[in-house]
Amino acid sequence: MATIVIDAMGGDNAPNAVVEGAAMASLTTPHALILVGHEQKIRRALRRFRHDSSRLKVHHAAEVIGMSDKAREGIEAKPDASITAAMRLLAGGEADALVGAGNTGACILAAARNLKRIEGIRRAALAAIHPTHRRHGPYGDPFGLLLDVGATLDAGADDLVRFALMGSVYARIISRNESPRIGLLSNGEEKSKGSPAVVEANRLLSKAPGLNFKGNVEGLDIPQGTVDVVVCNGFTGNIVIKMLEGISEIVHDLAIVARPSLLLRTGLLLMTPALRRIMRLTDWESYGGAPLLGFERVVIKAHGRSGPRAIRNAIKVAAKAVNGRLGERISEGVATLEKGLVRG
Amino acid sequence: MATIVIDAMGGDNAPNAVVEGAAMASLTTPHALILVGHEQKIRRALRRFRHDSSRLKVHHAAEVIGMSDKAREGIEAKPDASITAAMRLLAGGEADALVGAGNTGACILAAARNLKRIEGIRRAALAAIHPTHRRHGPYGDPFGLLLDVGATLDAGADDLVRFALMGSVYARIISRNESPRIGLLSNGEEKSKGSPAVVEANRLLSKAPGLNFKGNVEGLDIPQGTVDVVVCNGFTGNIVIKMLEGISEIVHDLAIVARPSLLLRTGLLLMTPALRRIMRLTDWESYGGAPLLGFERVVIKAHGRSGPRAIRNAIKVAAKAVNGRLGERISEGVATLEKGLVRG
Repeated sequence: MATIVIDAMGGDNAPNAVVEGAAMASLTTPHALILVGHEQKIRRALRRFRHDSSRLKVHHAAEVIGMSDKAREGIEAKPDASITAAMRLLAGGEADALVGAGNTGACILAAARNLKRIEGIRRAALAAIHPTHRRHGPYGDPFGLLLDVGATLDAGADDLVRFALMGSVYARIISRNESPRIGLLSNGEEKSKGSPAVVEANRLLSKAPGLNFKGNVEGLDIPQGTVDVVVCNGFTGNIVIKMLEGISEIVHDLAIVARPSLLLRTGLLLMTPALRRIMRLTDWESYGGAPLLGFERVVIKAHGRSGPRAIRNAIKVAAKAVNGRLGERISEGVATLEKGLVRG
Repeated sequence: MATIVIDAMGGDNAPNAVVEGAAMASLTTPHALILVGHEQKIRRALRRFRHDSSRLKVHHAAEVIGMSDKAREGIEAKPDASITAAMRLLAGGEADALVGAGNTGACILAAARNLKRIEGIRRAALAAIHPTHRRHGPYGDPFGLLLDVGATLDAGADDLVRFALMGSVYARIISRNESPRIGLLSNGEEKSKGSPAVVEANRLLSKAPGLNFKGNVEGLDIPQGTVDVVVCNGFTGNIVIKMLEGISEIVHDLAIVARPSLLLRTGLLLMTPALRRIMRLTDWESYGGAPLLGFERVVIKAHGRSGPRAIRNAIKVAAKAVNGRLGERISEGVATLEKGLVRG
């Protein structure tokens, strides 16, 4: 049984969508949930949704960091912001995991300022789940993991190796994929391709024990899903993930929203399964959230536009990560890695 | 009247597709064309396609660098490779522009070793044309320009500023867009976002004379087409462009090739115009080629998979760049830029 804190005020649709998602989760999960934020607003929202009040607590925090606020300014000007209060509960051991759909920069900064980093991990990595053409793991998950997408803009070779390890441990736990294939994002498959950090990371990963490293991958391998975990620095990953999101928006726009004529709707019906498969490839809602990795505690970042279903799924993912002992297993992995690389 | 050399042996479908494209062009263009490569093979192919032999010459070169050959090894081991021979004709003034669909690395290296760089340009940039949701310029071009996509992996701030200038001049000539909007690719819109080189490039571009700089753009602005020219280093650009290509392949696969059932084909008919618009967004064939910028002479790199239509379009683009005095206008732009930045 885990306790999961949820930033009730974070996200485009907060607090309603967050509270509704948590209410849904409370009916099926064995875990304890704590909604952090403006108590009155949370309780007002809670009244609207069926929930199990024995599993759902509210923790008051008076302030909110908005989606478009600058992260550092927000964190410093608002000491009682919901994300900071939630992170403090997590750091103090009152919870095992955090779910937040709010300002990404503020979430990363609040984690960095409040949580303990795993020994041997110098820089955190924010991962993203992205839909792929090929499926992954024994359960055929239709998505891959990409990291870092914005926590560490300029990652060194050692950081990239640790991102590979963390992504691999996470995929093992969440997708039950015993040996996730790892690719290092570069401008060519040859090991000589890329920045000095990428070339050195390729060399280190090639001899890293316990990692199923497949070498460099290229841009086209991301949507194809050639590997299960793609590793890159936060600058590149951020551009990649926002581009995928932009394309997803355009596809939805063109096919669904822009011209909902009768012809189109008939066409859409007939188009299945091909179009449904395209749509699935671009459905961001169904994957819940992605982890912020590198800290002893579990942090799951949900998309800013998360609806109730996404929040409920993010809570499930957080519980699964806690049960899978994410932090400890990364810590064990780092120890093995460091021993192996010294020997290698 | 310009003279355009064409690497007849370059590309997945060479020499036939290249020769056919050149043959088509010879019937309508006022320009002189020189096909460079294995003379016997070129003449054999030429016999199959209607052409104007008064406009079409053949220049023999015995060797070929394959699509998957390593660029440096290929260039050094094969001094009489078609791309090198074509580049020599261009360097010697026997031609004004080059069109090549072969090995990209070999094309860049052959240019670097044979052509004069424009004064003030330290590093070359390979541009790519990519389809966008929004349209560009007075003629509503459905594509944007992205550079660099692989010539200069690690571009400094000064290089990025010059890429912006070169892309802008090119868009002025080819899209007749008098004031192309330029965006600098980063992990956020704020001018403080990005690597040190990106932050410094933003500062320089903000005060650069004669450039319509719109600030930083993000990954989602690439498919949206928020600006006309997107500037980044070659590492990032290469990943971006290969990712777009991968997505394009998947969309074609899913919607057209994978399940051509009767239902699907009926659906496709009814789906227009929405699906046609998606398809257009991912049609790489129709844009001919993209420039390798930074040299006094015009070099147009066509896609490796170019068919005859793409080659003919690349020849048109090359002629337009020559008529628009691409090299001179970049050179004038650099002079203005350097004066402006010193004053600024």
